[in-house]
Parts: sequence; structure tokens; C-alpha cells
Amino acid sequence: MRDVSIIGVGLTPVGEHWEKPLRILGSEAVLAALADAGIEMPEALYVGNMLSGQLSHQENVGALIADHAGMRGIEALKVEAACGSGGAAVRLGYMAVAGGLCDVVVACGVEKMTDGTTSVVTSALASAADAVFEGEHGLSFVALNALLMRRYMHEYGYKRDDFAEFPINAHRNAATCDHAMFQREISRGAFERAKMIAEPISLLDSSGIGDGAAAVVLAPTDYALRHGLQAVRVLASSVGTDSVAIHDRHALLRLEAARISAQKAYAQASVGPEDIDFFELHDAFTIMAALSLEASGFAAQGQGPRLAMEGTIRREGRLPVCTMGGLKARGHPVGATGVYQVAEATMQLRAAAGENQVKGARLGMTQNIGGSGAIAITHILERLV
Amino acid sequence: MRDVSIIGVGLTPVGEHWEKPLRILGSEAVLAALADAGIEMPEALYVGNMLSGQLSHQENVGALIADHAGMRGIEALKVEAACGSGGAAVRLGYMAVAGGLCDVVVACGVEKMTDGTTSVVTSALASAADAVFEGEHGLSFVALNALLMRRYMHEYGYKRDDFAEFPINAHRNAATCDHAMFQREISRGAFERAKMIAEPISLLDSSGIGDGAAAVVLAPTDYALRHGLQAVRVLASSVGTDSVAIHDRHALLRLEAARISAQKAYAQASVGPEDIDFFELHDAFTIMAALSLEASGFAAQGQGPRLAMEGTIRREGRLPVCTMGGLKARGHPVGATGVYQVAEATMQLRAAAGENQVKGARLGMTQNIGGSGAIAITHILERLV
Repeated sequence: MRDVSIIGVGLTPVGEHWEKPLRILGSEAVLAALADAGIEMPEALYVGNMLSGQLSHQENVGALIADHAGMRGIEALKVEAACGSGGAAVRLGYMAVAGGLCDVVVACGVEKMTDGTTSVVTSALASAADAVFEGEHGLSFVALNALLMRRYMHEYGYKRDDFAEFPINAHRNAATCDHAMFQREISRGAFERAKMIAEPISLLDSSGIGDGAAAVVLAPTDYALRHGLQAVRVLASSVGTDSVAIHDRHALLRLEAARISAQKAYAQASVGPEDIDFFELHDAFTIMAALSLEASGFAAQGQGPRLAMEGTIRREGRLPVCTMGGLKARGHPVGATGVYQVAEATMQLRAAAGENQVKGARLGMTQNIGGSGAIAITHILERLV
Repeated sequence: MRDVSIIGVGLTPVGEHWEKPLRILGSEAVLAALADAGIEMPEALYVGNMLSGQLSHQENVGALIADHAGMRGIEALKVEAACGSGGAAVRLGYMAVAGGLCDVVVACGVEKMTDGTTSVVTSALASAADAVFEGEHGLSFVALNALLMRRYMHEYGYKRDDFAEFPINAHRNAATCDHAMFQREISRGAFERAKMIAEPISLLDSSGIGDGAAAVVLAPTDYALRHGLQAVRVLASSVGTDSVAIHDRHALLRLEAARISAQKAYAQASVGPEDIDFFELHDAFTIMAALSLEASGFAAQGQGPRLAMEGTIRREGRLPVCTMGGLKARGHPVGATGVYQVAEATMQLRAAAGENQVKGARLGMTQNIGGSGAIAITHILERLV
């Protein structure tokens, strides 16, 4: 397999883009990434998207966005893995380039969520759960995560407020991030007083609904070097899965998909968690942030929240997470999120993250999760000196 | 890149499977294909599916089917390209194996269409069209194809009955195919009297709605030979795209995506249309069969129906098509169809097609189309002597 690098990134600010349909959101990110790379025409486009069929009555968004971005004719496919769709698009782009099927490809994630009413979006998001064993019984996605969080608090003796530093950190980072949805800090008091959505998950434990698109351009590393392009190496790309229904997990509070995916990534990159300088994790809910840290080997079982409580996850800590706001504060346009994570990690490793820069970052990891831990896609990126 | 072969196939009869939800349909095909190959555990599963979100309120079907098939943990992704989703799944499987990312993978296509009412399914299928320029105005998918057919008849002077031999051939082949939905012949009189759906498209110009799943196992050819497995080589795998909205095509009656995809495939396989022994084409409607033959170089522009009228497409003709019934008569569970095509071509090239055998077949081509020609995925398969 060939060594692969990211040579361009494009990011749409996450928000309520009433004036931009799916194809415009997606193609703007694609064209921004190509312009960043100085490439006119890629060989393929892989689009991560979860909800276009349910919310925009539009399938086949791979071909749609390729055409709208002026690339009619090229290979263009949509990949879906619930909220992990964006990471899956990067995975396909990596496969195509690493395997020698294409030289220059674009991975794009796009989601348009704000056109529907909240109840329509909540219902659509529930299709990330098991329709037969969970959705059919009226469980929303936040309710599923509330069950996990409640059990976690019971098993390990945490209070709700012990999760406060996850969103406080995320919002602090988002406050200085141009493409973040919520560019403001939140106080501990605000977290403590936040409205309940599904107890113990409050509004400030949860990522918001937003529109957005992000894209990265991938190419062989030697191609990038030959053409003098700014390159960030993709040291590892991996996917792990688990049961979709949470009742059927071997251990309810272990994200086995994330563990498998992280272990595969560490093995491929020949590194361990101790080598990772920052981690763009999947904080769809604060409980997911804690579980992801544990499954990826950064904390022992039941110890994830301590990394937040002790400041480890802050920009100046040992393992900064959500360095541009994460899902909580940059925003979580579900099928786009995984590409935002990889694009943001690329900015960090280019030392182009401005006020959000993690000093001296050399290795960054991203982890995009679909469903309540049903699938995890992990990437490890390295700064090319 | 590595030489890739298909080493196992699994086919569910297409029909109304009221008793089988999506995960069971899909995993049965996956397990049948693995059993056929003598493989217990693949490294990855790529699932082609279009409508699970809209019709079964279930996304993330890659992880879902992997788990249900007893492969929890492996890489599992869903790919979507409207009615071309199945072909796209085979394309991803090919990429993973050819590129050296995996050794043994499964590509599965699955669709569950009969649980919804006809109006719900018709609405869902319209999401293969352009939601803004077509769907929003009430154009159903059959109506779009009717516009194409009407214009085609006008341009080239055909009558509706000139398309009769496409479904007659398809049904003749399906009559002896165990997994076909409509295992019966139809007469020319039946075609002439068939009820209109969207003039000039009648019931017998149209593929039906059905449930189904198909799977193929892919591995490096040398792996297959080393393990003494029955292998059919994948000589080419390619994707081409076009605008989704038909008003925006450069030439309304040319399937540019199919032309690009076929030309890429011929170049990769170093063959031409004259070398192809049979063609599993995408006869969602008779007009699509005609356009596909033209775009793929088997007939000049405006001459596609002649191949049907003159018997060229019959089992004993120069270019048999739809050898097990095609979309029309084997059935068209949309996201599964592309994998059925590849599985059927594999059976032909194993000389295991029974009464449907194309004598002496050495090279087979499949072409799966998404939308009204928005995307085409072409594979060329070769018998390993």
C-alpha cells in the first residue's frame, strides 16, 4: 500500500444555513479543499452523509455533489455509517489512494439538518439506533445515551456535574474557532442549571443540530512532496463495529467498536495512546466522550471523566480533545462530523490552528462514532516535518 | 494493484419476504456467499442499500448486518448510489482487495421494499431523482423514464411495441431461474395489452418492487488459486457519473455515466464490447435497457431496441442480456440489484447457470445504474480456465 497524505481541507461554518441546500453546502466544502490543495480535478469523490434521504428526500448525493462542484463524470459514491459517515468517507478516500486505485481524491461529509422540524430530525436521528429493538419502542437517540450515562454514573459513582468539564472545554475551544457553531464559553453554573433533555443528559451534555460540510483532499505522500504540497500523513485508518442495539453488547459500558478501531489504528501506525498529542473525539454526548477516552486506551474503565475533571483534555493539558469545539460546540452535522474532525486535525498538524493551536503537536487522532457505539472510524495523522 | 476474483455467491429469491426484516435478508445472503466460498470470517463487509432509512427507519445497516451475520467487530460500511448501490458495494469490495487493504471481503446488496404502501415506496424511489429540480415538482421515477422513452420514440421513430422483446426475453430467462421474482414467460400480446403506468411505460416495461439480498465474496486471485477455490476474475471495476437531473444532461438520450463507466472498464480489462459474451444490464425500464446498450458500445445511438427486435439479446444470440431475468423479471430490490447482477454473471462464468447457461461464456459484463442515468457502475468478469 502507498503512503497517503492530506493535502487540502475545506470547512463550512456549522450553523443554520437556510439559504444553502445540500448540494451547495457539499460542493462549497469540496471546492474549498481543492483550492487549498491547488488541485482542479480529483479522480473520485466519496461523500459521507446520513440523513439526506429522510430529511431532504435526496439520495445519490455523491453524483449530485460531484456534478454541482463541476466534476461531472468522476467516480462519486455516498457512504453511510450513521453519525460515523464522515469518518467512513475519509476511510474510502484512504482506501482508494493507499490501494493505488486513484491518485487524488476528495472525501467530503455533508449534512443538512435544520430544514426539518425538531421532531422530524429527532425521529430521523433515531434511525441510527436499532429500529426493531430500540426505535420501535420510542427510544430516541438522546434517550439511549441517557440510559448509558445513568448506568455509568451508578457503576462508577459519578455525579452529573462530574461531566461538566467536557462541554466547558469544548466551548472554550469553540470560542476562538471561526467555523464553530457556538463561539462562546459556558460557565460551570450554566452547565449545572442547564435544562434536562433526557435525565441525566442536559442541553449542555448534548451536541446541537446544525448544517455543515467539510472536505479533505487525499493523495500519495510522494505525489504531495513531488508537487511541493503541504502534506499531513495519514498513518492509520481503521473501522471497528459492535452490535447496534445496546442491550446486546458484551459489556454495556465498553465501546468495543472504538476499542477495536483504536487498536487497529495503533498497530497500523506503530504507536500507542501515549504517543498521541491531541484527540478529536466523538462528544455527541458527554458520556460518549468519557467512553471514547476509555475505549481508546487514554483512561482506565470508569476513569474517563477524570481526564476532564483534572484538566488533561484542555488545550494546554496532556491530551487536548475537541480542540476546535468538538461535536458539542463546533457542532455536529452528523454525516459531516467525521470529516470536520480530520480537517481540524490536519490544521493542527500544519500548525495553522491559530489561537486553538496545540503547541508542538506531531501526532493527532480522530475518532468518529456511529450509533451509540455501533461503529467507530479512527484515523491517526502525523505532521510531516 | 492485485488481481481480484469472486470466490463465493449467495442469492436470496427476490419476492415479498414479509417474515424477514432487513438484517435477516442481508445476513442470509452474506452467510450463503461465505459458505459457497468455504470462508468463515471475512475482513470487511460492504453493504449496498438505498432505502433502509426511508422505508425501515434503519441506518447503519453495515454494522447491523455484520453483527447479525456473526461478524461483530469487522469493518462494515453501507454505500449508497440510488439503484446503483449494489454495484457500488462490489466496487468497494474490489477496491479493498485490489488495493491490498483486505484479503477476503464480502459485498452485499439488500433492499426491503414491500413493507411500505406503494405510494410510500414510489415516493422513496423518487429520491433517486433530483429533489429540487424533479422530485419537488411531483415527478415520480417512472414518470422521468417515461419522458426519456417518449423523446426517444420521437427522435428515432420507434413505436411502443418495438420494446416488447426486452421484457419477453427477461421473462423467458426468469422462467427457469430459481431466485427470480416472476418465473413465467410473457407473450407479445400481454405486452401489447399491459396497463399503462406513465405513458408510454406500461407495467411490462417496468421492473417490479421486491425484497431481496445478494452477496459475493472477493479475494485476491492468487489466494483463491492457492486455496483451490473456484474463482471468477474481476477484470474491471469502474464508476461514471452524470447530472442527476435529466434536463441538465449534455444529450438527453445518451447515458454519459454509462458510457464513461463502460469505457473505463474496457480500458482496464483491455477488451472491447465485441469481446463481451453476455451483458447483465440495468433494465429498470425498457428504455434504460436500450440506452444502456447504446452507451456501452453494443449498439449505435438510436439502435438499442434493434438488438431486442432482432434476437441478439436472447440466450442463444450474439449478446445475451438479463440471463436470469434482469431487473424486469428476476426483480429489482433496488440497492441489491447490482450484486445480483455480479452474482449471476459469476454463476454464468462458473458454467453453473443450469438451463440459463450462456454456452461457452468467457467474458461477462454487468452494469448497474443509479437514478435516471446519474451514476453507472460497470464490472467485467472473466472465467478462469
